[in-house]
Amino acid sequence: MPTHHFTPTTYYTSMGTHPAALRVADGDTVITTTVDAFGLDANLNAAAPRGNPMTGPFYVEGAAPGDTLAVTLERIEPNRETGYTAHGLAANVLDPEYVRVMPWESGLAEWRVDLQRRVARLARETALGDLELPIAPMIGCFGVAASRDQAISTYTCAEHGGNMDYRGFREGVTAYFPVFAPGALFYIGDVHALQGDGEIAGTGIEISAEVQFTLRVLKGKAANWPRGENENYIFTVGNARPLDQALQHATTEMVRWLEQDYGLDPMSASYLMGLVVEYEVGNVYDPDYTMICKLPKRLLERYRKG
Amino acid sequence: MPTHHFTPTTYYTSMGTHPAALRVADGDTVITTTVDAFGLDANLNAAAPRGNPMTGPFYVEGAAPGDTLAVTLERIEPNRETGYTAHGLAANVLDPEYVRVMPWESGLAEWRVDLQRRVARLARETALGDLELPIAPMIGCFGVAASRDQAISTYTCAEHGGNMDYRGFREGVTAYFPVFAPGALFYIGDVHALQGDGEIAGTGIEISAEVQFTLRVLKGKAANWPRGENENYIFTVGNARPLDQALQHATTEMVRWLEQDYGLDPMSASYLMGLVVEYEVGNVYDPDYTMICKLPKRLLERYRKG
Amino acid sequence: MPTHHFTPTTYYTSMGTHPAALRVADGDTVITTTVDAFGLDANLNAAAPRGNPMTGPFYVEGAAPGDTLAVTLERIEPNRETGYTAHGLAANVLDPEYVRVMPWESGLAEWRVDLQRRVARLARETALGDLELPIAPMIGCFGVAASRDQAISTYTCAEHGGNMDYRGFREGVTAYFPVFAPGALFYIGDVHALQGDGEIAGTGIEISAEVQFTLRVLKGKAANWPRGENENYIFTVGNARPLDQALQHATTEMVRWLEQDYGLDPMSASYLMGLVVEYEVGNVYDPDYTMICKLPKRLLERYRKG
Amino acid sequence: MPTHHFTPTTYYTSMGTHPAALRVADGDTVITTTVDAFGLDANLNAAAPRGNPMTGPFYVEGAAPGDTLAVTLERIEPNRETGYTAHGLAANVLDPEYVRVMPWESGLAEWRVDLQRRVARLARETALGDLELPIAPMIGCFGVAASRDQAISTYTCAEHGGNMDYRGFREGVTAYFPVFAPGALFYIGDVHALQGDGEIAGTGIEISAEVQFTLRVLKGKAANWPRGENENYIFTVGNARPLDQALQHATTEMVRWLEQDYGLDPMSASYLMGLVVEYEVGNVYDPDYTMICKLPKRLLERYRKG
Repeated sequence: MPTHHFTPTTYYTSMGTHPAALRVADGDTVITTTVDAFGLDANLNAAAPRGNPMTGPFYVEGAAPGDTLAVTLERIEPNRETGYTAHGLAANVLDPEYVRVMPWESGLAEWRVDLQRRVARLARETALGDLELPIAPMIGCFGVAASRDQAISTYTCAEHGGNMDYRGFREGVTAYFPVFAPGALFYIGDVHALQGDGEIAGTGIEISAEVQFTLRVLKGKAANWPRGENENYIFTVGNARPLDQALQHATTEMVRWLEQDYGLDPMSASYLMGLVVEYEVGNVYDPDYTMICKLPKRLLERYRKG
Repeated sequence: MPTHHFTPTTYYTSMGTHPAALRVADGDTVITTTVDAFGLDANLNAAAPRGNPMTGPFYVEGAAPGDTLAVTLERIEPNRETGYTAHGLAANVLDPEYVRVMPWESGLAEWRVDLQRRVARLARETALGDLELPIAPMIGCFGVAASRDQAISTYTCAEHGGNMDYRGFREGVTAYFPVFAPGALFYIGDVHALQGDGEIAGTGIEISAEVQFTLRVLKGKAANWPRGENENYIFTVGNARPLDQALQHATTEMVRWLEQDYGLDPMSASYLMGLVVEYEVGNVYDPDYTMICKLPKRLLERYRKG
Repeated sequence: MPTHHFTPTTYYTSMGTHPAALRVADGDTVITTTVDAFGLDANLNAAAPRGNPMTGPFYVEGAAPGDTLAVTLERIEPNRETGYTAHGLAANVLDPEYVRVMPWESGLAEWRVDLQRRVARLARETALGDLELPIAPMIGCFGVAASRDQAISTYTCAEHGGNMDYRGFREGVTAYFPVFAPGALFYIGDVHALQGDGEIAGTGIEISAEVQFTLRVLKGKAANWPRGENENYIFTVGNARPLDQALQHATTEMVRWLEQDYGLDPMSASYLMGLVVEYEVGNVYDPDYTMICKLPKRLLERYRKG
Repeated sequence: MPTHHFTPTTYYTSMGTHPAALRVADGDTVITTTVDAFGLDANLNAAAPRGNPMTGPFYVEGAAPGDTLAVTLERIEPNRETGYTAHGLAANVLDPEYVRVMPWESGLAEWRVDLQRRVARLARETALGDLELPIAPMIGCFGVAASRDQAISTYTCAEHGGNMDYRGFREGVTAYFPVFAPGALFYIGDVHALQGDGEIAGTGIEISAEVQFTLRVLKGKAANWPRGENENYIFTVGNARPLDQALQHATTEMVRWLEQDYGLDPMSASYLMGLVVEYEVGNVYDPDYTMICKLPKRLLERYRKG
């Protein structure tokens, strides 16, 4: 399959039916770059507006509403050695009364990212001393054009994907998005060199990157919410507030998936999920939160259809 | 330290200042039995009222309000080979509209628990076939007498612990509870042979068990919420609805803990937590939900005081 | 029916099966006093512990689990001219980011309550100037002993009533509580001279009072949640967090009530409620929130059974 | 000021920077028609796609980002005598377990709307008999183009207004929307002949209508959320899930408004709001819920600036 090397010149802060930046065939691979959440590129130049500006959209030939777009993340490589986080934790992840007294400052903290040694260190004196944290690059925001002629802000997320800020969207993972517009119109950006569960500071280490991914169209395969898989798990993604509702979406979508692809009726699926399901908190900061519902592949192999 | 072999005769369905069942010294170990969530004992006889009847309370000499009670779970061993789960998933973990069509039935499903081979199998024909799941026994409900002369139902959970239904409360774990009453008054019960994250069926495999634990008093060490540690993590426990608020409690408690015992001011703690925190969903079924906030010990060792 | 003049000497901060302060017959009237939320009496003396100390419990002869206790509030009259509110709004009713900058101070603000002219004025210089607000006395916390041998803190509320802080609990209103313990064990206290919807400051004008009420037992009439009626409306009360769940409880309880007492099947009840239901926010400050679901009596008269 | 008679030919189901349907001057009045939520016009013909298709957008000369658009609703008059509601209550307003047993059917119930007598009656045999309910026409969905190049679905609501389904948006009310795009781009539609608080059936009596409104630009007057006023109240509108967050937005916006236009610092505003604030539930059905925060004008007149 061909590989496209694409250099973005326009960036979008909403995910709708914007003009295609590049047309690719089903199965093609794309190598391109992303700016950081603030629009800063590899040279720390302001290349795009703030607020998770996206590279794309990529029009995938043959993708139509009712299909699924499979996106395999092959490489997510920061392309500079400076990243940024917020100072302090987001107000909405703390007890409201504690917010009154919890220290916090505006602006950004700078982190030194050593791409050889794969570690990050805070460029500021704190009680953490010279602590180095191993980096684990991930995609904060990606997905397709939203449904119903919407153009949804890249601050938030919904059925089409978007700003899910789930640290499990890392190299080796395949994400599945329901297609709502002709060509799917795939967008990608907002790489984090490192982020904990929930994006509880309101940021990861925000950084620009080079990314490589392959786009495939699953014809006639419909889903209600994003899905994904990694080496060991299949997972569904619920995007909503509060977290309870995100969990309801992800859980319901997993029941549907087990019925569609694994031949498990909802009652059988329930027995299994009740005993082995796992959840991960994607983000609890963005306008809509993200909850992940996971099942281990080793238990499901015997049921997989086709 | 002495080990007490205790045979319960009375069970409680609320956690308050009920009369002590046994008085033990700081550091003592207790070996006792628990009935299942429905009050059924090792012989499937109804030994207690339904609704998570508790063994205890155990009065720990020297424990006083303002202290912390450390409970190390040394053994959690089912003592019968029949367990029960609900049929289908709980209504509150699914999209409300899907609840209208999702199959469900009242009553209980029986599971065969093979204690030699450490696996459980559903005693009913389903699309799962003869699937066997490895068991992983855990404590569903435990904790101390509640604050302010309350007696809190063992259906729910709060600052004192209670029905947290977190599958991480397994052998080898130490839980820490704030003490609100003289002697702490420790209760334990509601063992599950196996349960997924969130207790999304409204049950695990409910079973009676033999348990062994050691009780220690940490004088003058106060906490707001339950805490715990296992081989690799320290963790805090938030109990509330919705899940967002449980997460706020757990996160805030972790900031406090890092300040108390690790010498990290809240801003330094925030930088660290934002990048490496992990969450687990304890339960999303009980009147109050449970969210776990975790940090890896390997990153914290260098900061640990005393 | 007899009227009891009762002078309290003991106050409780949880609502469970505490010893009866007075036994009364079905239909009796009680005149007694309440201290304020901080335990201060008519002379501003500390007569009880802080935290909504309750007068009672009143044991009503003949009341048994499965019955309903009807409480008609005949008089709620502050008995001193000093009341207290918090400074500023509660953190949990504001946008979390705004909490970081919103002014706030600990301690209490004093209000002058003129019982002749029925107005209250802040005893402090502010931009409000000499604004006088008409008082509207209400009961913040009342109800019966909780279910399942619980003793529930008077900081919060549940099926048994408790700290609902709904300003609609004023003179002339009848409240209905499900009975969980023999004698019902009725508690009352926490009068506010004035409070807006939601108790969004975390307090009303907290004050001590003289109260008169009549207690009647409705044999065999079971409810799941508190109910009430005033001149123009019947209403149900949901107590839970988040507000969405409180609303679900209140709405479901109203469907049940229309079926029980008005002969409306749930579908017919739904058509009506969808078009004429009204809601009021009781409190959005306490550990559990309170939502009121109301229907106008004039529309229901034609359906009322018996 | 001129009055425009406008006949729509195109309808939109998202609120973004779609091409202007009509350009009007600041202060102009528009008389036009709206189709119902299902796209049915005065003759029950399908004139537009389902899902709250909007008449407009109206480009208001002089309106620019940072301004406020004032919309006075002068007339909302159904133009046919057939309306539709859903059957039964929405699943998300009921206790989840009750949803399993609550009756419900798909499709729509027909209502006869008598425009002379101003009443509506269900065209179906139910236990309600021949009950007639007085109609009270309102706007379900209206507002301006969303911020940040978004096009937001008319199923939901946000800072720009949208599908708020608040029955207080009736004749005589003025609504204020923050302007995000040049010309504001005002949309209107989704009239309900009658609806209770919360739109708990998921619909009001959905109907087509003739509407008249006047559009004024308040230059340089910025708001974060929609605001409004009627004869007796000023009010703010919070749109979010859960209801708690909608309430936080509305409450915070009211504090800001009192500071901007009434000279009340946030602490003074807090004292007042804590004692006299009122809330109304707009909708608890749409993807984002709507909560209204109200203050009586009679108390505010003395503080009003300018």
